[in-house]
Amino acid sequence: MSIITLTTDFGSLYPASMKGVILSIAPDTTIVDVTHSIPPTDIHAGALALYSVVKYYPPGTIHVAVIDPGVGTDRKAIAIRAGGQFLVGPDNGLLIPAANLLGDPEVYEISSDNIPDEVSSTFHGRDIFAPVAAQISKGIYLDDLGSKTDEYVGLDLSEYIIEKDFISAKVVYIDEFGNIVTNIPGAELTKAILQGTILSIAGRQMPFLRTYGEVSRGKMLSLIGSHGFFEISVNQGSASKLLRLNNGNDVKIGIISTK
Amino acid sequence: MSIITLTTDFGSLYPASMKGVILSIAPDTTIVDVTHSIPPTDIHAGALALYSVVKYYPPGTIHVAVIDPGVGTDRKAIAIRAGGQFLVGPDNGLLIPAANLLGDPEVYEISSDNIPDEVSSTFHGRDIFAPVAAQISKGIYLDDLGSKTDEYVGLDLSEYIIEKDFISAKVVYIDEFGNIVTNIPGAELTKAILQGTILSIAGRQMPFLRTYGEVSRGKMLSLIGSHGFFEISVNQGSASKLLRLNNGNDVKIGIISTK
Amino acid sequence: MSIITLTTDFGSLYPASMKGVILSIAPDTTIVDVTHSIPPTDIHAGALALYSVVKYYPPGTIHVAVIDPGVGTDRKAIAIRAGGQFLVGPDNGLLIPAANLLGDPEVYEISSDNIPDEVSSTFHGRDIFAPVAAQISKGIYLDDLGSKTDEYVGLDLSEYIIEKDFISAKVVYIDEFGNIVTNIPGAELTKAILQGTILSIAGRQMPFLRTYGEVSRGKMLSLIGSHGFFEISVNQGSASKLLRLNNGNDVKIGIISTK
Repeated sequence: MSIITLTTDFGSLYPASMKGVILSIAPDTTIVDVTHSIPPTDIHAGALALYSVVKYYPPGTIHVAVIDPGVGTDRKAIAIRAGGQFLVGPDNGLLIPAANLLGDPEVYEISSDNIPDEVSSTFHGRDIFAPVAAQISKGIYLDDLGSKTDEYVGLDLSEYIIEKDFISAKVVYIDEFGNIVTNIPGAELTKAILQGTILSIAGRQMPFLRTYGEVSRGKMLSLIGSHGFFEISVNQGSASKLLRLNNGNDVKIGIISTK
Repeated sequence: MSIITLTTDFGSLYPASMKGVILSIAPDTTIVDVTHSIPPTDIHAGALALYSVVKYYPPGTIHVAVIDPGVGTDRKAIAIRAGGQFLVGPDNGLLIPAANLLGDPEVYEISSDNIPDEVSSTFHGRDIFAPVAAQISKGIYLDDLGSKTDEYVGLDLSEYIIEKDFISAKVVYIDEFGNIVTNIPGAELTKAILQGTILSIAGRQMPFLRTYGEVSRGKMLSLIGSHGFFEISVNQGSASKLLRLNNGNDVKIGIISTK
Repeated sequence: MSIITLTTDFGSLYPASMKGVILSIAPDTTIVDVTHSIPPTDIHAGALALYSVVKYYPPGTIHVAVIDPGVGTDRKAIAIRAGGQFLVGPDNGLLIPAANLLGDPEVYEISSDNIPDEVSSTFHGRDIFAPVAAQISKGIYLDDLGSKTDEYVGLDLSEYIIEKDFISAKVVYIDEFGNIVTNIPGAELTKAILQGTILSIAGRQMPFLRTYGEVSRGKMLSLIGSHGFFEISVNQGSASKLLRLNNGNDVKIGIISTK
């Protein structure tokens, strides 16, 4: 009995076809939705979503991710074994940060032998990635799905700058609460600044703290969030609305006092 | 171990009561959400959603669908066996296109003997359809649920016109990407026009192609989409926003050049 | 094989980490999403959601609920046994109405021995409540998780008034259809007024009836809804939009004629 997770930009309805395909091939599979609400075609946001959950899954889990603006073109389909888990999806960088986090990724290009003859040109999630994941769940070896390759599209979530008096980063996710999740890994930031440091953004000051409740309701703060990334938040409010920042925006943060 | 799928206009929360009822009767069932985001009371959109997924499910799957503006009135409750699968829901046309697609539908009116005494007047999804589906999952015969009938409400998704120089159709679904899904089955359209044909809508021209990536980013095109229906799209954009078209709208499309 | 349900204000993505943690510890668990769309930090709305579904679940079900504005502060973590089911979450009132409904709640404070050393300060749903629920699913006794306590935060959903000529209540939920769900239990209201009674709200009259279809399309009515609470509705329309009422608003309803 294995687990297949799904991460897509499909919204509702389309994932149900993928699930039917998976359960037709591997009826005992436990299917988990990571999210189907990635902003359409946003590979960066999808990569972060996957990156943020894989480490909580047990060995043998198969993660299918489909943010696929190149569907129907000649981009490759890949399957990866990394850290005892599997990732399946398009070769556009989406799977790479999660694979690197899991460790020692081995990337296989899914060969056309393993792709059904009747494949729609718009929905490889259902017609290629779901059946491949179900086959892995049934025990097929990646070597039998295709051949190992070193040529695949990479993706680096970490194009950010931490200097003496400023931080430059990218918004990669706005969560349900309006928290602004950036692409700076918590471990990198805590090397540079201490808790209690005062930062500034868009002319407003905010402390760098441990948890929301350390400021009063409605006050802005920054912290290392649940995803393990540097985050800008308003206690019981929406930092995204306050600062008018959205997914993909650049943020520049001043370092006022290094405590 | 069988599969029960759910298709409703309930949003979140209400489906959880249906799942509790199902798992209380048939704990081994795998429950799959098709969607709970059908526009409230839109039987047509619900019928298309169900129609678009059933063929991907294995024999024995039980599909519960509840778009039910007539709940609490004297509309019948029905269960259908078709093509080795089952459908359960209100007798308002919702289940019929999917049943016809699966093949040879046999429709049963669920008898009042099989309806619990304490039924709410507003939530038959939980009080009638969920327990009936769970009983089917446990192996009850439809003959024991009620009697076979030829009198049920039909629904035709295919009221469209394809003429020499125009197409008239209905919008049945706007997906997460803003793609406009019409009610014209792909097989019918490709009998009439070839790939590369130039069409027009609202004064704008668009080619009829195979996949999104065949036009540049932001350009409009039309194609046979993942659901198997004729679709109007913008590559990496929202056709729905561009054309201000929504679910239920009529669309008229000119045929400029038949390639 | 047991059932774990999840009720949170997390939106998408975060719940997937909780599911990974649960399935890593207890792989045979059936996980059901009650909802992840509770308005952020709205304990009252979360408590009602949980309250409205628990009675449909079988004995042994474990309900995890996390609406947790106090995360990272010193609020306690609790697990409750009530009516043969279990509830796990923060000690802020969220679990109490459901526990009281299930009957004879026994509340345990989860001891720090049972909380992992590495707990994030922002995501106890993943780091404390999910693993505790998985352990209960594997058969651990609540006595081994912590010690029984009578000191916990209560919550009363029922601060409403029913007088001779008016009703005063609170909006606790707006459902997908725009129905306005109040905090008045149906059983209490039907003691006071009969079906057919004419009520008034914001200068408009509405009958108190059994089901939506008893008024024509677009007309307002009131009834006991699917959740078992007094509800204000528009047949095939949105009462919430019509009356501009939202979650948390107070409503005052006149009793015009007691039939």
